[in-house]
Amino acid sequence: MPLRGSPRCHRGVAARDIAIRAFSGRIAVEVSQREGLVMGKLGVRCFSVSIDGFGAGPNQDLQNPLGVGGLALHDWFFSTRTFQKVHGTGGGATGIDDDFAARGFAGIGAWILGRNMFGPIRGPWPDDAWKGWWGSNPPYHTPVFVLTHHARPSMTMEGGTTFHFVTGGIHEALARARDGAEGRDVRLGGGVATIRQYLEAGLVDEIHLAIAPALLGTGESLLTGIDLVQLGYRVSEHVATAKATHVVLTRDATRRPSP
Amino acid sequence: MPLRGSPRCHRGVAARDIAIRAFSGRIAVEVSQREGLVMGKLGVRCFSVSIDGFGAGPNQDLQNPLGVGGLALHDWFFSTRTFQKVHGTGGGATGIDDDFAARGFAGIGAWILGRNMFGPIRGPWPDDAWKGWWGSNPPYHTPVFVLTHHARPSMTMEGGTTFHFVTGGIHEALARARDGAEGRDVRLGGGVATIRQYLEAGLVDEIHLAIAPALLGTGESLLTGIDLVQLGYRVSEHVATAKATHVVLTRDATRRPSP
Repeated sequence: MPLRGSPRCHRGVAARDIAIRAFSGRIAVEVSQREGLVMGKLGVRCFSVSIDGFGAGPNQDLQNPLGVGGLALHDWFFSTRTFQKVHGTGGGATGIDDDFAARGFAGIGAWILGRNMFGPIRGPWPDDAWKGWWGSNPPYHTPVFVLTHHARPSMTMEGGTTFHFVTGGIHEALARARDGAEGRDVRLGGGVATIRQYLEAGLVDEIHLAIAPALLGTGESLLTGIDLVQLGYRVSEHVATAKATHVVLTRDATRRPSP
Repeated sequence: MPLRGSPRCHRGVAARDIAIRAFSGRIAVEVSQREGLVMGKLGVRCFSVSIDGFGAGPNQDLQNPLGVGGLALHDWFFSTRTFQKVHGTGGGATGIDDDFAARGFAGIGAWILGRNMFGPIRGPWPDDAWKGWWGSNPPYHTPVFVLTHHARPSMTMEGGTTFHFVTGGIHEALARARDGAEGRDVRLGGGVATIRQYLEAGLVDEIHLAIAPALLGTGESLLTGIDLVQLGYRVSEHVATAKATHVVLTRDATRRPSP
């Protein structure tokens, strides 16, 4: 128990702690958490943007969940073995794109989604009929915290996904997601407006962007007006394939707000 | 003379014409030009932008001609054989980055530069002492048209570079550059504000961007508020190296303004 007596969660230590304990599995993580030492990262992963900086096209609706033209941003992801295993017919490519796709799901204990990522309905929920874009067995397999201004009961799906609807804002969603993640990382799924809110609040530890060779012209700009340098980010990984340029932005630990 | 009698310059034909005639050299190009058939493209080439979309950092001055942090955008270029041949000690790397660097200079008959690319002086020229950042033998070796609100006599440098100062705006600069280029392409060197003006006016035929794995956080955004899809651009090339993602954006010929 080398960390016993540590006055508070130190993220650098916690990250190493998770990595080491992963070998001995879930029980060790739970022990650490009872000590209040382990806290997973909040990360954006596999988030695709166009050459001109848009994370989604304009005019999102039932036919265009990613906005008009937005589907092209995700070509790199659709072809991977990781995607095909979940949504396709099996097969799919391995390699760098697939490595990033797989990393996107590794070690995630909870997700946070903006309401528009959950569905096309705006305003109050007319009923509980809409259960997300993903059918009866969504690809999350963890608790998923959906930001909304309109309360709705939690909904348990097949495969271990439970949708919770959070009306108290981004900090409440993060607190509940961290709690639900039990020491593992929390993935901030999007969309653009939600990521921007968390970035501006200084809450995102790591961002993996996939810059796709596509232009959208208009839509939702991920970074316009956000000063990533001022927020403490630097490029920690950069590798490109024929389908995307993968960039990982990591936040300087000294600039992180205290937990 | 297969193009005799063609009612006006057709750019698709003109481009092939240049390519074919290049084998027989300069005289053929001049013949074509007298027929009014050949017009080079206006292109942005080797223009580096950060992950967050900035083409230059903030606070450009004599010490920071590319703005604070802006030098990092050009790492891919500095290491190339093309750059080292001109500015360095020889040597330098070959490969994809160098191929793009060399293409940046190939077939260029004139350049257009914004005033801030020519130098750090703002307002009226105090005298003719400032002759650009590049010493007595600038790397252009063609006429260079510098946009400015303040007239100044043309200035002939070593190596075939002549700086002309254009006070009549972007259209006048382009007309003079096309004339000076004698059928070859015109390269729009920058900076950001100048490229944005030419993009918004629908005058740029092709853009080669090098997206560098760097964040600037703030500075001059190349594309914010410019709808490249509406302007008719599509991604025509995409290839990445460890140092940059190279993207060529080409304009749909049907959307080009008539010459």
